[in-house]
Amino acid sequence: MRKILVIGIGAGNPDHLTLQAVKALQTVDVFFVLDKGAVKQELVDLRQSILADHVTGPYRVLEGRDPDRDRTPDNYVQTIEAWRRDRADVCAGLLAELADDEVGAFLVWGDPSLYDSTLAILDDLLARGLEFEVEVIPGVTSVAALTAGHRVALNQVGKPVQITTGRRLAEGWPADVDDVAVMLDAKCSFEGVDQDTWIYWGAYLGMPDEILVSGRVGEVAAEIRALREEARARKGWIMDTYLLRRT
Amino acid sequence: MRKILVIGIGAGNPDHLTLQAVKALQTVDVFFVLDKGAVKQELVDLRQSILADHVTGPYRVLEGRDPDRDRTPDNYVQTIEAWRRDRADVCAGLLAELADDEVGAFLVWGDPSLYDSTLAILDDLLARGLEFEVEVIPGVTSVAALTAGHRVALNQVGKPVQITTGRRLAEGWPADVDDVAVMLDAKCSFEGVDQDTWIYWGAYLGMPDEILVSGRVGEVAAEIRALREEARARKGWIMDTYLLRRT
Repeated sequence: MRKILVIGIGAGNPDHLTLQAVKALQTVDVFFVLDKGAVKQELVDLRQSILADHVTGPYRVLEGRDPDRDRTPDNYVQTIEAWRRDRADVCAGLLAELADDEVGAFLVWGDPSLYDSTLAILDDLLARGLEFEVEVIPGVTSVAALTAGHRVALNQVGKPVQITTGRRLAEGWPADVDDVAVMLDAKCSFEGVDQDTWIYWGAYLGMPDEILVSGRVGEVAAEIRALREEARARKGWIMDTYLLRRT
Repeated sequence: MRKILVIGIGAGNPDHLTLQAVKALQTVDVFFVLDKGAVKQELVDLRQSILADHVTGPYRVLEGRDPDRDRTPDNYVQTIEAWRRDRADVCAGLLAELADDEVGAFLVWGDPSLYDSTLAILDDLLARGLEFEVEVIPGVTSVAALTAGHRVALNQVGKPVQITTGRRLAEGWPADVDDVAVMLDAKCSFEGVDQDTWIYWGAYLGMPDEILVSGRVGEVAAEIRALREEARARKGWIMDTYLLRRT
């Protein structure tokens, strides 16, 4: 049976890699890469350097063209699902190159369970009748990298925390929680929350360009927006995450 | 300035250790251990084997007696806070043994940001006027180990997820979320949710004794309770986590 590893490689620091991930990398025959074009070339380079540093045996890299998707769709779920189908078509083509006794792998930033579509794509391929085993190697999430950088807990004592998207936060503060970690926010949705809320913000977490800002939203929101725009203009891309805390 | 490292060591598989954690371990002069007695000796042994495997230089281990706490308090927050003060007293005694140019470390299961009190203790000690730097090394959470074991995503497409405690879940399903990860549940609070809810449950995640069960709550709750009780009786302790999903 063919085997597909889905390996969490951490939030951007190559040393976020776990020993389990390093051992898994060394068993891989084929790495599957969905190429997003030149925009995040820095992340592609970082992934390649991880392979160069840790994989000693021969391996192949198969690249597919990651389908474009509407970043500001009217119907988020429907748009994502259509994009996933296209992406599954591309991945089916990649997997066709994997021999019966070979091990393939997808490398996933952060942890494969959090706002990543690889597992859903593989479920789609299994539902189409493709045959392979799946093994998941957990990784350090960008949320853990964020809280480590700020040296803060994710939750208050005995209290819940919600992990959500910028899109959801823009619709209002979630009920029943005082702590909200936000991912995938291209629009600085933190600007809309109570100005007394504390924000722990971070971009390029774990990387040499890491930027961390914390403070009351009313006092640091403009600074974060400016830093964010300057960094994105300079580097051509940005990935950021933040924790909002009501006390 | 004295330096204290708070190092996430993953959910129970020694290979959850990150390369960053391995490098950090090798800089440590003094490891601080809060001894909980014989109950979780297996975890103490596992932590010691991590040191034996990865720390080559000389180091000291300083053990303190972790104060007892009421596991079923009337006022959860107040009880935890009093217990934290006692624990901070113990830790202040441990830190007094660290010389000015030395590096101390606390090893934390999972990630130091999630339902762990080490960072709060260190904040208490800084507030008391003790002087030291803190650095946090993020780790693989038990939640990531759980979803990896079940090969499922933590969130549904574009949707939020809440991480909470068994105590909170027992008060009712949290508002505005369909996916809830539950930690610190000694009372099988999942039995009280809608019987059609899907549960992904895991105990001793990442360890050789790992147990995974998934299914509709109505169909697997009794099996999980029985497995849980049998395993706790056999091993003397249990740590489990689960994800509840409404679809």
